[in-house]
Amino acid sequence: MNKQAPTLEDVAREAGVSRATVSRVVNGVRNVDPSIQDLVRSAIERTGYTPNRAARALVTRRTGAVALIVSGAGDAFAGRVFADPFFGRVVNGVVGYLRARAMQPVLLFAESEAAREQVVDYVGQGSADGALVVSVRPDDPLPDMLLSARVPTVLFARPARTTPVGCVDLDHYAGGRLAGEHLLARGCRRIAVIGAPPDLRAGRDRLAGFRDALARAGHDSPPVAEGVFTLDSGAAATAALLRDHPEVDGVFAANDLMAQGACQVLRELGRRIPEDVAVVGFDDSSVAVTCRPPLTTVRQPVEEMAAAMARMLDEQVHGTGAEPRTLVFSPELVVRESA
Amino acid sequence: MNKQAPTLEDVAREAGVSRATVSRVVNGVRNVDPSIQDLVRSAIERTGYTPNRAARALVTRRTGAVALIVSGAGDAFAGRVFADPFFGRVVNGVVGYLRARAMQPVLLFAESEAAREQVVDYVGQGSADGALVVSVRPDDPLPDMLLSARVPTVLFARPARTTPVGCVDLDHYAGGRLAGEHLLARGCRRIAVIGAPPDLRAGRDRLAGFRDALARAGHDSPPVAEGVFTLDSGAAATAALLRDHPEVDGVFAANDLMAQGACQVLRELGRRIPEDVAVVGFDDSSVAVTCRPPLTTVRQPVEEMAAAMARMLDEQVHGTGAEPRTLVFSPELVVRESA
Repeated sequence: MNKQAPTLEDVAREAGVSRATVSRVVNGVRNVDPSIQDLVRSAIERTGYTPNRAARALVTRRTGAVALIVSGAGDAFAGRVFADPFFGRVVNGVVGYLRARAMQPVLLFAESEAAREQVVDYVGQGSADGALVVSVRPDDPLPDMLLSARVPTVLFARPARTTPVGCVDLDHYAGGRLAGEHLLARGCRRIAVIGAPPDLRAGRDRLAGFRDALARAGHDSPPVAEGVFTLDSGAAATAALLRDHPEVDGVFAANDLMAQGACQVLRELGRRIPEDVAVVGFDDSSVAVTCRPPLTTVRQPVEEMAAAMARMLDEQVHGTGAEPRTLVFSPELVVRESA
Repeated sequence: MNKQAPTLEDVAREAGVSRATVSRVVNGVRNVDPSIQDLVRSAIERTGYTPNRAARALVTRRTGAVALIVSGAGDAFAGRVFADPFFGRVVNGVVGYLRARAMQPVLLFAESEAAREQVVDYVGQGSADGALVVSVRPDDPLPDMLLSARVPTVLFARPARTTPVGCVDLDHYAGGRLAGEHLLARGCRRIAVIGAPPDLRAGRDRLAGFRDALARAGHDSPPVAEGVFTLDSGAAATAALLRDHPEVDGVFAANDLMAQGACQVLRELGRRIPEDVAVVGFDDSSVAVTCRPPLTTVRQPVEEMAAAMARMLDEQVHGTGAEPRTLVFSPELVVRESA
């Protein structure tokens, strides 16, 4: 356990470059050829080299730490975040990017106004070089608070208000269209939707894309029951939809957890999936695989989006990034058994 | 958003004490009467006061941040942590304790040897005042690494090796006994167990308590199929048990996720729960309530245990704690529908 820690020299030898080159990569100096950077980074991974943070911070005025802030509200917020596999995928993507660059991911929760101020104070006073924000609130004040505190910031998902800040997002409208086209192609004609809260842009866009797919094929707008992205709310919405529309033969749920809730209710009522009712989810999270039956779903490449978010922040911190921009990823239909 | 931030004076007025007293509580000076401390802390919560960390750190040499480290191994470790509601409860308990004291909880992942060294380096160089460790590995080197780096440390669950460090734990043996006695009391006689990996002390103790409850009532040792605390592994273990012992009328699973997997398999095979097969879980996590049917389970008071762990560390950091000790909590049977 106390074996000699690998040094800058070990990394240089492993990468076949000079000590000065390794040092420039580790300290994020500009103008190092990207292929050389990759060489050095993979040598860092192989040797397990950890730069001395205190010494590095003295030179660079950077801590090597990056805050990943999950922002929301309500009792036991952190616990509810853990119940949603979406956040685990974000963390995996961010951790994967940062570790390979010997940067320290630091996960913070901002579950109330007081906590938000505490978190901005913590990061703003130099405990991290920048912030990655995942917010579950459409009107979250946190991004503006971080900008006011001059904290380099990148967001997961475009905010409702216009904030001059970089972000990664998905083309949710295209995702909704994929779901609608798939249900129509497999012959569903009495289709219902388990929607997201209407104040969330992502949810509105998924629904708009889905409706447009149906409209293009000459179908009426589907009935919608609203959920809040949890399994229970998906189950409740399904029960309500079946009460009002017992003839339903296809369901599109705005995320996989709600689709799983729909499957539970349908199975308990003896409806076969997909023969009697086909179900399409959204996200392609871990529950899509463990659901019974496994879910056909619209894949959101969350890990890649999270890694891209970390890269945008990295570039911003090191002054190599361009203007804040939005990087939009494309969804993909993953066909399993439920539709 | 940019309203005047509350000051030490506001807190003093709200609490009805002097500015000096508030300052002593905020800076963790010893010998402040506990009832006065409570007064000041609740005034801090009501006013939303946030101490200026940088100024405080200059005086106290403390950062006000506490690291909560989840230590384990394997690909996409952080994502798997998120899939288990157990960790969300730990985070809720820790966040609840620290926020009320204007301390900043910082969640770190230690998913590999290199990450463990990075994390120890980060905390050891003063980024946090101490570390709370939740480990999923029985032979985790992290506690010893933190002690070597002179980081005040408290653990969730006693480590396999003897480490001079404080920890909170559950009386797992008593929990196993509660489960066994309950299944016997409701008339089950052909009982099987979905166990935990045998290298985990908690799992061994739960099984020993369960076996002893059966032995005391004159019953043979039950068949055991092993799982790894996931829903899928619980489902697979149940299928294997039913293949070898189709007459089973009671199942004890070493956690709720595996009990949920058992319920899924039993329902799919047309067995009624609890009439044909009674199922008892362990933890009383969120899935115990959302499971179909809701789970009878052995409650582990994770939130209280986590808050106590944070309090032990707080006392250690401020020099008011005694010798490192183990605080053992008692389990409780929660009866719902599954048994």
